[in-house]
Amino acid sequence: MQAIKCVSGSALEADGQSILRAIVPTFDPFRYKGQAGKVAVIGGCREYTGAPYFAAISALKIGADLSHVFCTKDAAGVIKSYSPELIVHPVLEESYNIRDDEKSIISSKVLADVAKWMERFDCLVVGPGLGRDPFLLDCVSEIMKHARQLNIPIVVDGDGLFLVTNNLDLVSGYPLAVLTPNVNEYKRLVEKVLDCEINDQDAPEQLLSLARRVGGITILRKGKCDIISDGETVHVVSVFGSPRRCGGQGDILSGSVAIFSSWARQQNLATGDNLRGSPSNPMVVGSIAASTLLRKAASTAFGKKKRATLTTDIIECLGISLEEICPAS
Amino acid sequence: MQAIKCVSGSALEADGQSILRAIVPTFDPFRYKGQAGKVAVIGGCREYTGAPYFAAISALKIGADLSHVFCTKDAAGVIKSYSPELIVHPVLEESYNIRDDEKSIISSKVLADVAKWMERFDCLVVGPGLGRDPFLLDCVSEIMKHARQLNIPIVVDGDGLFLVTNNLDLVSGYPLAVLTPNVNEYKRLVEKVLDCEINDQDAPEQLLSLARRVGGITILRKGKCDIISDGETVHVVSVFGSPRRCGGQGDILSGSVAIFSSWARQQNLATGDNLRGSPSNPMVVGSIAASTLLRKAASTAFGKKKRATLTTDIIECLGISLEEICPAS
Repeated sequence: MQAIKCVSGSALEADGQSILRAIVPTFDPFRYKGQAGKVAVIGGCREYTGAPYFAAISALKIGADLSHVFCTKDAAGVIKSYSPELIVHPVLEESYNIRDDEKSIISSKVLADVAKWMERFDCLVVGPGLGRDPFLLDCVSEIMKHARQLNIPIVVDGDGLFLVTNNLDLVSGYPLAVLTPNVNEYKRLVEKVLDCEINDQDAPEQLLSLARRVGGITILRKGKCDIISDGETVHVVSVFGSPRRCGGQGDILSGSVAIFSSWARQQNLATGDNLRGSPSNPMVVGSIAASTLLRKAASTAFGKKKRATLTTDIIECLGISLEEICPAS
Repeated sequence: MQAIKCVSGSALEADGQSILRAIVPTFDPFRYKGQAGKVAVIGGCREYTGAPYFAAISALKIGADLSHVFCTKDAAGVIKSYSPELIVHPVLEESYNIRDDEKSIISSKVLADVAKWMERFDCLVVGPGLGRDPFLLDCVSEIMKHARQLNIPIVVDGDGLFLVTNNLDLVSGYPLAVLTPNVNEYKRLVEKVLDCEINDQDAPEQLLSLARRVGGITILRKGKCDIISDGETVHVVSVFGSPRRCGGQGDILSGSVAIFSSWARQQNLATGDNLRGSPSNPMVVGSIAASTLLRKAASTAFGKKKRATLTTDIIECLGISLEEICPAS
């Protein structure tokens, strides 16, 4: 790893490719279904269906064995139809669909429907296409509390960041939480937690303070450079990706952080040791890996599709990009 | 065929490629739609739609003329949307959707809706994406009893194995039944039938005992090597497939066993004789053929897609893999 100038001020440019090679599991014919990772996305409502699909399919394309989506009934049929590879549970509810006097019973049922699956998952992604319905967000808060009790990692993006920014206790002090804010989401987070404006001059330092103030959770600030901190270290991924800013790339990232941080945790647990020369926090390691791979895949997709590049094109390049960095055999 | 060491202890390595060449029907311009096989998958519920699609489309891609799916209303639209090639019947019902006082009438209606099609099918696949709703499983039990009365072969996988393990009479002593358990499903079966633990040291012998104890049904134990027994013989397919363990590969296998065992039965009926040098039981023959082809297709798909290999990629390689073993002309 070497220090480079990124935003302004110097910060550690992460060696994302070495980290990827260190955490991607080797194949073993004795392994069985599930051992390479099981992730779940909490998101998908009447309005949004693409985002949870992007997050869930990205985890599979990188190498997860199973990828689930928990969404509303309205969203489920559509998300299922995008791909038979996903397991989609129509369990969330929005206010428009229920009476006030049912809310308490339905809330308990939603939690129970998700909770019975929870222990199987290596990581949750909360937020892609979640929407902002108050009743739905209340249910998701309960799901997050339950996941936290079980020590299941949680990656928070999109509307999940809206929820968390207004309810910091959901993640504060939870070392297995990762937030992946874009510029606007980061601005709200900084205003809420640090009570000040974004400081682009000292972006790494500000991110370090922010992550520390929220009790050492990992924050991946997306931008021209991605900056990642857990309040202890700051790492930057600045390799160029694609100039296209089509919607959905953040969903690829959140699904990728989920599977890579799961693998980094497996490595930590398996070796009882940190990856040599890499950050010790598996959530930081997973975030660096995800940022590195997404940028490479976006670059490859842009090389092929140019201005027409869409999120599905980038997802199609995840496999070949990973293969170039880290050959399967 | 030659004896090889597989799990431990020696067992017969099946010559899967020769078996495939022997049972795949030759093309004949005088044949008409349906003669190359009609299979039906019983599965697909509110939660699962990918599994029955994988099983049904695999049978078609191998060479079946018609492939049906019998599933719940919730699942039908989604499964139809995966492919216009399938015929999808929205006839099954789950408890949440019906009142207690309707159950008896609805149960009869479900059976009648499936039964009127039954005699057309060469094989049923029971279980992919079936779910575990008690009312639905009761209806499926009745469907299986009816199929058995008509001497229609039944391949049981997934939640169908949950049903059968708790109701062994459904298949016990039925020579046209094939069970295709994975490691966990096999463990439950061994515990229930043999009242002991899995013995990996003498896996072929244990499988032989198990198949014999359930009255000579065929069991395909999936794993690093697939082991197949009908209580009379044991065969092993150990050619390497793919190290990916993404969900859905078992569904390809069940659909493949259905069509290959149908063809093996046709051959037996047509020639009045066994395939020279091959096992005599068409359900065993079909299981060996399916295991052999799936492993080849998975290997081909992995060669192309590496870590990004998903079940749909393997399905896309079924045709070319079969062509390499057994050219169409």
